[in-house]
Amino acid sequence: MSKIRIGIIGYGNIGRGVEKAVLAAPDMEMRAVFTRRDPKSVTPCSSSALVLPIGEAEKMTGEIDVMLLCGGSAKDLPEQGPHYAALFNTVDSFDTHARIPEYIEKLDAAAKKTTAVVSAGWDPGLFSMMRLLSDSILPDGKSYTFWGRGVSQGHSDAIRQIEGVKRAIQYTVPIQASVDAARSGSRPELTAREKVFRECYVVVYPGADKASIEKTIKNMPNYFSDYDTSVCFIEDDEFIANHSKMPHAGLILHNGNTGESNQTIEFSLKLDSNPEFTGSILTAYARAAHRMASEGLYGAKTVYDIPLAYLSYKDRATFIKDLT
Amino acid sequence: MSKIRIGIIGYGNIGRGVEKAVLAAPDMEMRAVFTRRDPKSVTPCSSSALVLPIGEAEKMTGEIDVMLLCGGSAKDLPEQGPHYAALFNTVDSFDTHARIPEYIEKLDAAAKKTTAVVSAGWDPGLFSMMRLLSDSILPDGKSYTFWGRGVSQGHSDAIRQIEGVKRAIQYTVPIQASVDAARSGSRPELTAREKVFRECYVVVYPGADKASIEKTIKNMPNYFSDYDTSVCFIEDDEFIANHSKMPHAGLILHNGNTGESNQTIEFSLKLDSNPEFTGSILTAYARAAHRMASEGLYGAKTVYDIPLAYLSYKDRATFIKDLT
Repeated sequence: MSKIRIGIIGYGNIGRGVEKAVLAAPDMEMRAVFTRRDPKSVTPCSSSALVLPIGEAEKMTGEIDVMLLCGGSAKDLPEQGPHYAALFNTVDSFDTHARIPEYIEKLDAAAKKTTAVVSAGWDPGLFSMMRLLSDSILPDGKSYTFWGRGVSQGHSDAIRQIEGVKRAIQYTVPIQASVDAARSGSRPELTAREKVFRECYVVVYPGADKASIEKTIKNMPNYFSDYDTSVCFIEDDEFIANHSKMPHAGLILHNGNTGESNQTIEFSLKLDSNPEFTGSILTAYARAAHRMASEGLYGAKTVYDIPLAYLSYKDRATFIKDLT
Repeated sequence: MSKIRIGIIGYGNIGRGVEKAVLAAPDMEMRAVFTRRDPKSVTPCSSSALVLPIGEAEKMTGEIDVMLLCGGSAKDLPEQGPHYAALFNTVDSFDTHARIPEYIEKLDAAAKKTTAVVSAGWDPGLFSMMRLLSDSILPDGKSYTFWGRGVSQGHSDAIRQIEGVKRAIQYTVPIQASVDAARSGSRPELTAREKVFRECYVVVYPGADKASIEKTIKNMPNYFSDYDTSVCFIEDDEFIANHSKMPHAGLILHNGNTGESNQTIEFSLKLDSNPEFTGSILTAYARAAHRMASEGLYGAKTVYDIPLAYLSYKDRATFIKDLT
């Protein structure tokens, strides 16, 4: 069987994670990486992958079976999603929660003869699946989502915008007492502040006003003002030694009742590399996009619409025998 | 919208669990319970449910949208599965792992104009889904399944067959050191004995030979001889007070690598009532069977074949907005 030919639009952290996952997949090959940077400045891990300016993608419709859209949700995907879904089967991890219904509609309109898998990371994505599965099985119940301990790219970026800040990283840390309360079955109502603590490590330029930076961080609306936050100023070498990775973790906990009984479903992730894991999920869904398109199942598809069988690189008889 | 009309074949622990789940589902109604016992001796929880002799089921094809098959996997389902799948949409939790491929084939042949969902409990069922999902995302990885702490009905039954035994219950207990080893990412090979300990509580008749009973249990092939087992003799009142429930628990742990990173996916259940939880899963899949049949998606379906969207009692716009 010929291999599924993969293209990547946007070669940042997630794009590189996708590439590693494609190289590890027995049924796929990396065909091309499309970038806005000078292609000469980009060296993919895979010797078989072309590196091309993003404007060349449109010419490659016959060469690529699935295009993985690895740009950002704020600015890139709202444009790139509909544009590339009209030309290729696509997979993305669009994660602006409030705008997902509208995004699905746009991609569905664009994907007339293609299959566009949307929002297939881990949240939204795997966690969405677990929320739906749990709610369907235990409707008299309540789901809790806890993120962390891990790096929030968005919060780290927000700190780096502050004048005087040279480097910054923010760890989202779940508050154990709240996890325990959710686990107890008492179905507590938990505020954002009760669920998560925000831990920041910051390197400043010489002469920066640390007290003022700390105050600016802690009072930043949306990002920090609704949470308890710690700010720790450190030196460059400590930052590079201890804070250069992108670990993350997360937990979905659903507590429900049947008759007089309490039942708990938990799904959790512990990730050394968040972008590599996200890239691995997108890659599994690329297999689904390719298969669904080959069966004429066109349009926008969410993780709710795709049977798990489409994700496996194993043949049906094997996974039924080995995994059931 | 009219409610999905549910029938139950076999009114044991799982059948009663299904009934409670149907009563809690906003879109379903209990129509009839079919039993081999004298119908007068059976009192369902639901006032709307008829109680009928099992032989009456065939006459009710126009009255029941989905028939939930709640008999045992050893003797009931191999006969009942194909028989009822020819007449009704069905859901079952057939769990004789080695015979599942053959069972699927038989039901697929029978379900010409119906939809038959097979092996949709928690293992096989939810755990199968997690094994496939994890293996698809992290193919360079290894999955571990730990059952317990909870009651194994099969092992408890086996002890009750021994002469002199009045009551018995067996708890399957995962061995924490092995869970920790699996979690570490070192991918240990674990034997059955290393994964699970078997804890037995037994009430004997006056004059029974306890030493001999203990020896018989510990040496019983398949059930106990490959495991470390404890046998504790207790009195009737203690048994009734402390060992009359059917809790269970389980954990699927998948450890995988992407690039240089270790990634861990865990899915776990903690159940006060195993049969009520299994009944709740079957009920969610009854919704899927009904919907797939209404779309002409006939034949045997595994949990791998069914998009999660079919499980939800919520409309599509709502679950996309609320759960994604």
